[in-house]
Amino acid sequence: MSIKLAIMGYGNLGKGVEIAANAAKDVDLVAIFTRRDPKTLKVLSENVPVVSVKEMDAWKDKVDVLVICGGSATDLPVITPLYAKSFNVVDSFDTHARIPEHFAAVNKASKEGGKIGVISCGWDPGMFSLARVYANAILPDGKDYTFWGKGVSQGHSDAIRRIKGVKNAKQYTIPVDAALDAVRSGKNPELTTREKHTRECFVVLEEGADAALIEKEIKEMPNYFADYDTTVHFISEEEFNKNHTGMAHGGFVFRTGKTGVDKEHNHVIEYSLKLDSNPEFTASVLVAIARAAYRMNKEGLSGCKTILDIPPSYLSELSGEELRAHLL
Amino acid sequence: MSIKLAIMGYGNLGKGVEIAANAAKDVDLVAIFTRRDPKTLKVLSENVPVVSVKEMDAWKDKVDVLVICGGSATDLPVITPLYAKSFNVVDSFDTHARIPEHFAAVNKASKEGGKIGVISCGWDPGMFSLARVYANAILPDGKDYTFWGKGVSQGHSDAIRRIKGVKNAKQYTIPVDAALDAVRSGKNPELTTREKHTRECFVVLEEGADAALIEKEIKEMPNYFADYDTTVHFISEEEFNKNHTGMAHGGFVFRTGKTGVDKEHNHVIEYSLKLDSNPEFTASVLVAIARAAYRMNKEGLSGCKTILDIPPSYLSELSGEELRAHLL
Repeated sequence: MSIKLAIMGYGNLGKGVEIAANAAKDVDLVAIFTRRDPKTLKVLSENVPVVSVKEMDAWKDKVDVLVICGGSATDLPVITPLYAKSFNVVDSFDTHARIPEHFAAVNKASKEGGKIGVISCGWDPGMFSLARVYANAILPDGKDYTFWGKGVSQGHSDAIRRIKGVKNAKQYTIPVDAALDAVRSGKNPELTTREKHTRECFVVLEEGADAALIEKEIKEMPNYFADYDTTVHFISEEEFNKNHTGMAHGGFVFRTGKTGVDKEHNHVIEYSLKLDSNPEFTASVLVAIARAAYRMNKEGLSGCKTILDIPPSYLSELSGEELRAHLL
Repeated sequence: MSIKLAIMGYGNLGKGVEIAANAAKDVDLVAIFTRRDPKTLKVLSENVPVVSVKEMDAWKDKVDVLVICGGSATDLPVITPLYAKSFNVVDSFDTHARIPEHFAAVNKASKEGGKIGVISCGWDPGMFSLARVYANAILPDGKDYTFWGKGVSQGHSDAIRRIKGVKNAKQYTIPVDAALDAVRSGKNPELTTREKHTRECFVVLEEGADAALIEKEIKEMPNYFADYDTTVHFISEEEFNKNHTGMAHGGFVFRTGKTGVDKEHNHVIEYSLKLDSNPEFTASVLVAIARAAYRMNKEGLSGCKTILDIPPSYLSELSGEELRAHLL
């Protein structure tokens, strides 16, 4: 029996979910919902209907899980609770500080509808959260480190683009090798913000813009750049379009901790991701979670969940017997 | 409310569980059970009673979870099912090929007693299994790699010690850096046994033994060494005792996989452990799992489980709210 999955929102993430759903043997993509005029949307899967969000009510009983693809700033806080009452939903809400309130809103709606809503799935929050929780449970006497990159920070790129005279910009967050090595060695270093990551910016200027002034403005921007060693490269639009449109990302989660009668033994747990496509990897997590959401709801569970509440086996298309025989 | 934990078997692993239980704020170590004469056992925790296994019946209602520390070859297949009927139990059974039958035996006993039995916890099986299952669920089109070491292989050390003329021996399994780098690069290499690990042996000879002959016998031993590049060092007993009594271990789990319309994007997921003390780390996992076993049984669940069946949050002493606010 296949899981009938639908996508809401067809940007980079939605396309990634489409690809991941098609790659999963036990998942059938049954609909793509959009706020745009469905006729204007060209999707990869020719046989899948593209449907206006206005008609979603008619799909309540035809969809097992709805994967909601939208921005965390304004879209998901509204859309996920809205649909959580009628559908099992999965989202990638990633504003860490606002997770508790998003959880509460989705939990209320999901409970009312007898549905499952899984929020904040992807890699951080998501796989990195798992790495942190398992490692903390195992090594209570220890220290956590999370590094991001090398990858594009959308927020920092946007901040540069808002500067007058900037035509386009990409900002890469880069973990500092020396810091990674120090953590990996088990030395439990205290690391400042500056010691953990550097920031590299590629900027296309408007004609006549003052490069020196813009470089200064970037490097001194509070919160975004002032606490980091920042490099600024001014490049042509041609070079920008050729080399800086990729969506690679990744990062590292460490926990280092001690055990022993005299705390004489060090342990280093490291989890890392190196991703050619940030949205496609996030989408692949969402589809695995959609499988789990379907199963939990089949078992009669309802309410809001996160990846921390879900048995790992629920994410896999393999049975318990198969997992024990081959992957345990 | 504290979890009342008991240990059965007081070797390196049992001592590790004692240390981990004392390090966990929500766990009380209430008894150490032994097959030896309790009077002969000197334990770290002076206030904890050491009790003969013959008297375990009297402890049924005084213990929340029993952590069984024994060998996988002959101890655990008998002992875990035996006590699974009367206690919530946790073990570190690590003979991968026999997990299905061990699961069946423990499941039967645990169900009969209305208890939870969690088997095969540690790092492999255990944390490495989790890394494999999550990564497989996310990247269905990919390839798994597991490397062990640098660390001591008990089985290989034993095999050397059985050779005539060998007084003592330690064998280190070492992952090959070039192989690790090839996997990490996302090249999806096909690796032979020889390309993945080397084996390094430190051997103390009996007086008058023939070193050349023994080296040949080690290197040509089928299954254990013949398929590997093996180095043999003959050392004095003094050097052996000084440098080769440690219990460090570790390893790496990778999954590399592809996504994209044309499978054009590579992703590398890496999980690694670098452990100063193999038994103390394994013990730390067992105690986190004991917490989960206690919770599952409190909820009315029974039967055999593995780490794949347990929501990650159950391993943590933090509440769902705390986890969502701080670690998600």
